[in-house]
Amino acid sequence: MWLGARLAALPTPALAIDRAVARRNAERMQERCRALGLRLRPHVKTHKTLEGGALATGGTRRGIAVSTLAEARFFADGGFDDILLAYPLPTGRLEECAQLAQRLEAFQVLLDSPGALQCLRQRPLAGGKRWLVWLKLDCGNGRAGVRPTDPGALPLARAIAEEAPEEVTLVGVYAHCGNTYGCSGVPAIQDIARATTAAVLDFVAALRQAGVPCPQASIGSTPSCSHPVPEMSELTEVHPGNYIFYDLQQTLLGSCQPQDVAIRVLTRVIGHYPHRNQLLLDCGWTALSLHGWAQSPAGCATVEGHPQLRLVGLTQEHGLLEPVGGQVDFGRFPVGTVLALVPFHACATAAMHPVYYVHEEGEVVALWHPVRGW
Amino acid sequence: MWLGARLAALPTPALAIDRAVARRNAERMQERCRALGLRLRPHVKTHKTLEGGALATGGTRRGIAVSTLAEARFFADGGFDDILLAYPLPTGRLEECAQLAQRLEAFQVLLDSPGALQCLRQRPLAGGKRWLVWLKLDCGNGRAGVRPTDPGALPLARAIAEEAPEEVTLVGVYAHCGNTYGCSGVPAIQDIARATTAAVLDFVAALRQAGVPCPQASIGSTPSCSHPVPEMSELTEVHPGNYIFYDLQQTLLGSCQPQDVAIRVLTRVIGHYPHRNQLLLDCGWTALSLHGWAQSPAGCATVEGHPQLRLVGLTQEHGLLEPVGGQVDFGRFPVGTVLALVPFHACATAAMHPVYYVHEEGEVVALWHPVRGW
Repeated sequence: MWLGARLAALPTPALAIDRAVARRNAERMQERCRALGLRLRPHVKTHKTLEGGALATGGTRRGIAVSTLAEARFFADGGFDDILLAYPLPTGRLEECAQLAQRLEAFQVLLDSPGALQCLRQRPLAGGKRWLVWLKLDCGNGRAGVRPTDPGALPLARAIAEEAPEEVTLVGVYAHCGNTYGCSGVPAIQDIARATTAAVLDFVAALRQAGVPCPQASIGSTPSCSHPVPEMSELTEVHPGNYIFYDLQQTLLGSCQPQDVAIRVLTRVIGHYPHRNQLLLDCGWTALSLHGWAQSPAGCATVEGHPQLRLVGLTQEHGLLEPVGGQVDFGRFPVGTVLALVPFHACATAAMHPVYYVHEEGEVVALWHPVRGW
Repeated sequence: MWLGARLAALPTPALAIDRAVARRNAERMQERCRALGLRLRPHVKTHKTLEGGALATGGTRRGIAVSTLAEARFFADGGFDDILLAYPLPTGRLEECAQLAQRLEAFQVLLDSPGALQCLRQRPLAGGKRWLVWLKLDCGNGRAGVRPTDPGALPLARAIAEEAPEEVTLVGVYAHCGNTYGCSGVPAIQDIARATTAAVLDFVAALRQAGVPCPQASIGSTPSCSHPVPEMSELTEVHPGNYIFYDLQQTLLGSCQPQDVAIRVLTRVIGHYPHRNQLLLDCGWTALSLHGWAQSPAGCATVEGHPQLRLVGLTQEHGLLEPVGGQVDFGRFPVGTVLALVPFHACATAAMHPVYYVHEEGEVVALWHPVRGW
């Protein structure tokens, strides 16, 4: 019912996506990867929408990374294929994985332990299908993955490749360089991108030297892929995700410029409280999330066009704005005024919304409905 | 499809609600209010489900507070009535409010400014219906509301009551004592409950003295209503919400005992990382929310039955556990082990889940589907 509406007419809070900016972000990442000779496997966890996935794959709907089985099913139902569940193998939900593996041309899983490999071996696929497996490497991020220098890493890769070639295939090695999110500025991000690339390529070289073919090598994170280092061209693919929307955090990291951020939360002024020099907004943490609250000087969001205002409180459905200094000019912000918040973390903010209002120059041109759950 | 399943069989992460505990919380609050001669108007924002609302109203489905128009419509569709939109009047969505006012016996709104009253006056209801209005008071919480000592407060209450008696009715005054969340311990909470009650009752007395009848007086917050002060019996109603689930925060505040917390997030161990002494969980901030991260020594959640473990990292779909001291006994937590997290803030955690698995003694007896959006 909101197609054709102006953004300012929408009920608030509302998640607004600038389609032209998102498309430009998608195209630039595609161009960057083409220039490096890399396949782009966009991660869809930021938006979790078919439309965002279509944009990010340049319309092919082939070659994505997902973070949940719910996403995998949703995108499979939406005509996507070559889907990598970029998450430690959910050994308790192997049957769901097997169903996806049987119905898709390529459903890929990743693992980082011999136990997970044994789990796959206990559930061979039918009809000549093989489990397509990526070995997850931890190259300094410190979350999931086996460290490439770990004595068990090469034997595990070998076991995936050779233990049961009729059942399991080693597709490649996969590393998420999420440690780039702790950086400040492009040079520091590029140092991590370079180190991750080197660690991955050294591991692949050692594998080859040991006679184990490892066709693919993938790294990713929006910071590293937004300003890639030339060494990355030796990889086969990258898997960033956030870049399609970008956010305040990415501008602070140096991944993008403010004009590259496609996501806003629209909110209205719903109260004036002169005795405490504050404006009340109809946007709480159910619409914005609390990301950035303790991490960034700007907090969870900036107010577009009003750098003198800052969010000083968020409860379930209310937000409080006050000036960085001086007095609020209440006459400038009458009750009903629509403000646009630039969120700190697009993935976290998008996760709070059942619908995204997608616009071109302020006119709603599409509604995107994300998948939720697990 | 999960009815009859054991909790340990559920796909994780999963939100589990212990129905017996929730029912006991509901009954205790009803009993507490009966003893004080107070009407209980449960706030439904914590669970946002018809089933939770039925439990909290003792099956009457009459007399609730909601925080969004989406909730108001959802509960109206579900057979609820006497619904108070406990939120500053959404002046840009007056038509939606009018529709609810026309279809329900009692749809009530609240406001805290003359502008909002004028807005209501410009949209009179049809068929002899009147706008049922609560004046929102700020008795020290510092969010929405007019302070009872503000020179404009009494004139605004008088205007609601008398300006257009055929169009607008003053139902009462409403104060949310959310400042109890800043307390430590029951005496401090009760000081705020007493002060809020006194401020509200003084205001009502002044109104009566000025010849303005104000039939209702409502205060609320789970901390204040869990250990009410006798003075509250002079009010007409209270409107707590969180108590039906309670949470880690409420146990820290002193509102409840650990055994009163009805909500858990179930998660599985999905990785062992001995070199950094950590377990990986399939629960990130999409399943838990980040509430409590910077507020509580226990962080976003405690691990039930394992006080020696603490959450040290949460990303979108991953959580990291490590011991408070010493080494993880990895043999005790094999991959696949189901753990139950007691979340810091039930409202925030519930908001992340499209379905709640409701159980009796570990067997799923119902699925509750909350309303989302605005």
